[in-house]
Amino acid sequence: MLGGHILPRFNNRYLDLLGDSAVLPSFDGPLCMTTDSYVVDPIEFPGGDIGRLAVCGTVNDLACEGGIPQWLSMGLIIEEGLEIEVLDRVLESAAAAADEAKVQVVAGDTKVIERRGGQISSLMINTTGIGSLRANIDLDPGRIVPGDGILINGNIADHGISVMSAREGLEFETAVRSDVAPLSALVFDLFDSCIDIKFLRDPTRSGLAGVIADLVENTGMTVELDESSIPVSRAAAGAADILGLDPMNIANEGKIVVVTAEKDRQKALAVMRANRYGRNAAAVGRFTSVTPPVAELVTSAGGRRVINRPYGEELPRIC
Amino acid sequence: MLGGHILPRFNNRYLDLLGDSAVLPSFDGPLCMTTDSYVVDPIEFPGGDIGRLAVCGTVNDLACEGGIPQWLSMGLIIEEGLEIEVLDRVLESAAAAADEAKVQVVAGDTKVIERRGGQISSLMINTTGIGSLRANIDLDPGRIVPGDGILINGNIADHGISVMSAREGLEFETAVRSDVAPLSALVFDLFDSCIDIKFLRDPTRSGLAGVIADLVENTGMTVELDESSIPVSRAAAGAADILGLDPMNIANEGKIVVVTAEKDRQKALAVMRANRYGRNAAAVGRFTSVTPPVAELVTSAGGRRVINRPYGEELPRIC
Repeated sequence: MLGGHILPRFNNRYLDLLGDSAVLPSFDGPLCMTTDSYVVDPIEFPGGDIGRLAVCGTVNDLACEGGIPQWLSMGLIIEEGLEIEVLDRVLESAAAAADEAKVQVVAGDTKVIERRGGQISSLMINTTGIGSLRANIDLDPGRIVPGDGILINGNIADHGISVMSAREGLEFETAVRSDVAPLSALVFDLFDSCIDIKFLRDPTRSGLAGVIADLVENTGMTVELDESSIPVSRAAAGAADILGLDPMNIANEGKIVVVTAEKDRQKALAVMRANRYGRNAAAVGRFTSVTPPVAELVTSAGGRRVINRPYGEELPRIC
Repeated sequence: MLGGHILPRFNNRYLDLLGDSAVLPSFDGPLCMTTDSYVVDPIEFPGGDIGRLAVCGTVNDLACEGGIPQWLSMGLIIEEGLEIEVLDRVLESAAAAADEAKVQVVAGDTKVIERRGGQISSLMINTTGIGSLRANIDLDPGRIVPGDGILINGNIADHGISVMSAREGLEFETAVRSDVAPLSALVFDLFDSCIDIKFLRDPTRSGLAGVIADLVENTGMTVELDESSIPVSRAAAGAADILGLDPMNIANEGKIVVVTAEKDRQKALAVMRANRYGRNAAAVGRFTSVTPPVAELVTSAGGRRVINRPYGEELPRIC
């Protein structure tokens, strides 16, 4: 397993030693560390798979904290009977994502567990990431003031629609592909442009609505979102409609919500649009001093409605 | 979940911030990093549980590489329906083990998955650990020479027997309790005594026999083990006999195999015996220049037999 399937794909000077722990060079400055387990069903879906998801999710969590992703560990929990071709594809995809994100997988673990039912044998992956913290950043929602802008780097809901469609065997006129992608380079582009970034968060599990709800709670300020400016593809919007879901609540894996001072809004949009994962970036809302604080959507029809925090957890999971 | 069950137990300044990543102070010198997923069945067994196991296993992997364990991430994958009392006990146990090992859990993740069968809902845990590398150590099996001694810090086979007995509902005359324990303090005691340690390894999954097989392979030297000096309790030996297993192949979770120069053997034994997890430490074998290289057991009856590497993987897993 290790020699034939894993090492050739994650070849680097640290992993190859295969000791009890990887020994890594020293760091300058503070570290950041994050962990996530990925249990998506199905493990392959249009636009991605659990391998790309596990690498990008953890890379993006580091980037959202101002970290420069450096090293990942990868723990595979494999149900017995998983087709080796599937495992190979997932590992290949994880390795490609790691290359793209410029991180090295330096520690790994493989466990085989009994198959517990389900139509096919599955796979879960935990990735834990370490990054060095960028200097001269101040990500703190406490710095947000009325007038600050809320931006997103492109279309929402693609990941969740892709996974749910694959799971249910739904076929829509236009296939929706997951947006799963490493966003560290896009985040670095923003920091390198001296834009005053006050907050970054990847709107995964509970979608854009979940991040907005957090922002209202953390700042005590009202957020006003402009529905017509929120980018969503016609295919994803149509699929969400058929599934009875609101795109605002659907998971993304290649999106980042950025809060920036009003003066930097246009510059931030330009920087994001110049990145391959930000071509469809948009300013979707702003903070206001309206009280009591609430998350409010100005609809395309000109009405207003309150956005609630999505609640509960759907199973099987989508990220 | 997070507020009620996890944060109160792993309270520390880094975890409490609940950001996308924990931000940690900088390190001096090289780091080490290791990851392991724990899928033991049952999750509670005499002498321990999956929480203590997940902390100690990762702490011990760092210590075996010469690392000073500092920070852990903990990813919980919980089957829906897991009794909250069981989860609480496991988390309490993990927190106590982390305190004992002087590590902080700084990053966490919880996923709930569909229950997939089995009599009760279960739990899997991934822990990833970061440590700082101790200065002035040279753990390298390439330094081993004929005459060097092989030591172990106490009775073998207790963990595997404990888990297998709990799983099968076997009751032996004397209950065998898992030896699961954090061994970083014992390892530090050895280093602090200026003993020339050439190799450290925790004999988990494939037992003492697995580590010995690795040593023969890595050094190209013969290892001669003295069966009568290998510490094993009467209860564990009896249970292994009933289960048709060789204690040498049974997993341990609180043991460490130490290779040291012959001149340091007695001193190392004394240091280990002074630690609470080393009271029954013993010198169990030595390297010789006999060729071809082989792992050989000198039996209590005076015979000799070759020790083979345990092969295959039993399911359900025991660590």
